[in-house]
Amino acid sequence: MMRVLAGETLARPPIWIMRQAGRYLPEYRALRARAKTFLDFCYAPALACEASLQPLQRFKLDAAILFSDILTIPDALGRSVRFVDGEGPRLDPLIDAPDWRFDEPHRAVQRLAPVHEAVERVGAALADDVTLIGFAGGPWTVATYMLQGEGGEKDRARRAAYERAGDVDALLALLAETTALHLAAQARAGAHCLQIFESWAEGLSPALFERVILAPTRALLIRLRALGVTAPVIGFPRAATSEQIAAYADALDVAGLGLSTAAAAKALRGRIKRPIALQGNLDPQLLVVGGRALEDGAARVLEEFAGGPHIFNLGHGITPEARIDHVQRLVDLVHGDGL
Amino acid sequence: MMRVLAGETLARPPIWIMRQAGRYLPEYRALRARAKTFLDFCYAPALACEASLQPLQRFKLDAAILFSDILTIPDALGRSVRFVDGEGPRLDPLIDAPDWRFDEPHRAVQRLAPVHEAVERVGAALADDVTLIGFAGGPWTVATYMLQGEGGEKDRARRAAYERAGDVDALLALLAETTALHLAAQARAGAHCLQIFESWAEGLSPALFERVILAPTRALLIRLRALGVTAPVIGFPRAATSEQIAAYADALDVAGLGLSTAAAAKALRGRIKRPIALQGNLDPQLLVVGGRALEDGAARVLEEFAGGPHIFNLGHGITPEARIDHVQRLVDLVHGDGL
Repeated sequence: MMRVLAGETLARPPIWIMRQAGRYLPEYRALRARAKTFLDFCYAPALACEASLQPLQRFKLDAAILFSDILTIPDALGRSVRFVDGEGPRLDPLIDAPDWRFDEPHRAVQRLAPVHEAVERVGAALADDVTLIGFAGGPWTVATYMLQGEGGEKDRARRAAYERAGDVDALLALLAETTALHLAAQARAGAHCLQIFESWAEGLSPALFERVILAPTRALLIRLRALGVTAPVIGFPRAATSEQIAAYADALDVAGLGLSTAAAAKALRGRIKRPIALQGNLDPQLLVVGGRALEDGAARVLEEFAGGPHIFNLGHGITPEARIDHVQRLVDLVHGDGL
Repeated sequence: MMRVLAGETLARPPIWIMRQAGRYLPEYRALRARAKTFLDFCYAPALACEASLQPLQRFKLDAAILFSDILTIPDALGRSVRFVDGEGPRLDPLIDAPDWRFDEPHRAVQRLAPVHEAVERVGAALADDVTLIGFAGGPWTVATYMLQGEGGEKDRARRAAYERAGDVDALLALLAETTALHLAAQARAGAHCLQIFESWAEGLSPALFERVILAPTRALLIRLRALGVTAPVIGFPRAATSEQIAAYADALDVAGLGLSTAAAAKALRGRIKRPIALQGNLDPQLLVVGGRALEDGAARVLEEFAGGPHIFNLGHGITPEARIDHVQRLVDLVHGDGL
């Protein structure tokens, strides 16, 4: 995977799977039961490490990704974060708060030391040929959760970006700084590469995309490099338009680009002005469905991404309904053991 | 607006607003209270006609759109459709049904006669220079509601498209036929142009987009023309990728293309192989926010769409929180009375 991130085109792409340590694995569900809250789980280095390693014990994946969550950052910044079963995360919405107060970024990131310790543990346990991925949420995605208090429609976050432009820009700058420190700590702890999950890059006008995605992510990456981190970064502006994805690749110091299910890799390669590793983008539902549909879908992805550096992945996270035998089949297909 | 749909570029674009007859208007809320259920309201020609005309009485809009709903078609086909306040529509999910039975398309569309009567009434009341828009949902969007029983994540509908491919293709074909008949009846009743709302065109792999969007919409449009309808059609594959939008325009007999908020009109004009009217795409939140942000946003849209046929609109439907004075300001800005 690191060769692909350096620009090499391989005959068979490496493969990892977004949310590969997750609820579709019975051993994950058993492990999860050992911590009370989801954040307790993320902050227990032994548990987070074991969760990160579980999928590698089943499948011949080329990368492990730290088990953690993008909302550890708001938690560390002093915002209350709860995970409600079946409903997703809940925060106290900033939109309703009379004034916005956050802890100082360095002190916040010190609170994430257990996450960095988990990275160290995973690194120590991994085979030499397996890449270790650290990650964080993109500033706008994390800000959206903080502003609205939840996911769902992003209307309120977008409205705040217009109505309280100064406050929102300051929040994005704070998140860029905090995220750079958090990613740098993960790199120092042994992460080989870093992914930025901008899960809510969709539905933004061209002007707003520049302001709330490109500008803070640029600041984040400049800061990350200033901190001495050389690890390649994969940006994942999920469900952005093709023009926005190309602008993201051209404007930012990223070695790889995650593509969501709808994206057309071949067309994007023609649009981006430099060689870049493209990661994606099988429909996660095909790991529920399996059979011929999975085989056809995987073959189409391999064909669509051929002719340039490719990291095989899904277009979105694996779902709890995915079947383990289908994941096994996919890994075999991609590695060429099963085509 | 009809001149723009014929390919003319005007100094000032015509303007209408998706969901312009809607809950942000107090007179709409008062009118809505006169019918028990939302479908009763849609099936009362006098009420649907009055709702369609209300925004024209306040604002100098260039088009009226029939007040109706895309789910009248599943209702007419014999599926139970309920509108739950604050939750959106609910249907009995086809996915859970042991066998799929629907009424015959011609008979189903006869049940929509009150909708066609509403079109006639609106047409009779409109000034000569105002365009009357008829509409329906795209086959995939309507199928998604029917399959899942609700909106939200489209995972179950996509899974069904893989798992029960034959059944889903047959459903899409039935919807294409029924929708063509329904649109033809609206054209005969006086609609000058027809919009197809493919609200859930997002998140589809390139192969699935071809299968569930392009193929059934092509069948729909061929059937519509075979029925003798010459009215121009505006396709709105909401939140599709730029490649998919260009493929939609190139493959289908549409005179106009609705663009969602994130789309880049200038880049799309370069990609589409024939001149086409582009409609859009101001962020609906700007009609909540108003002020300088609204002015800047409207100016950006005007600039982005300049140089080709443009129909000004939002990138998505107007929200109940939109302010009437902001709508007034927008119409003035677009018509050049307020810039």
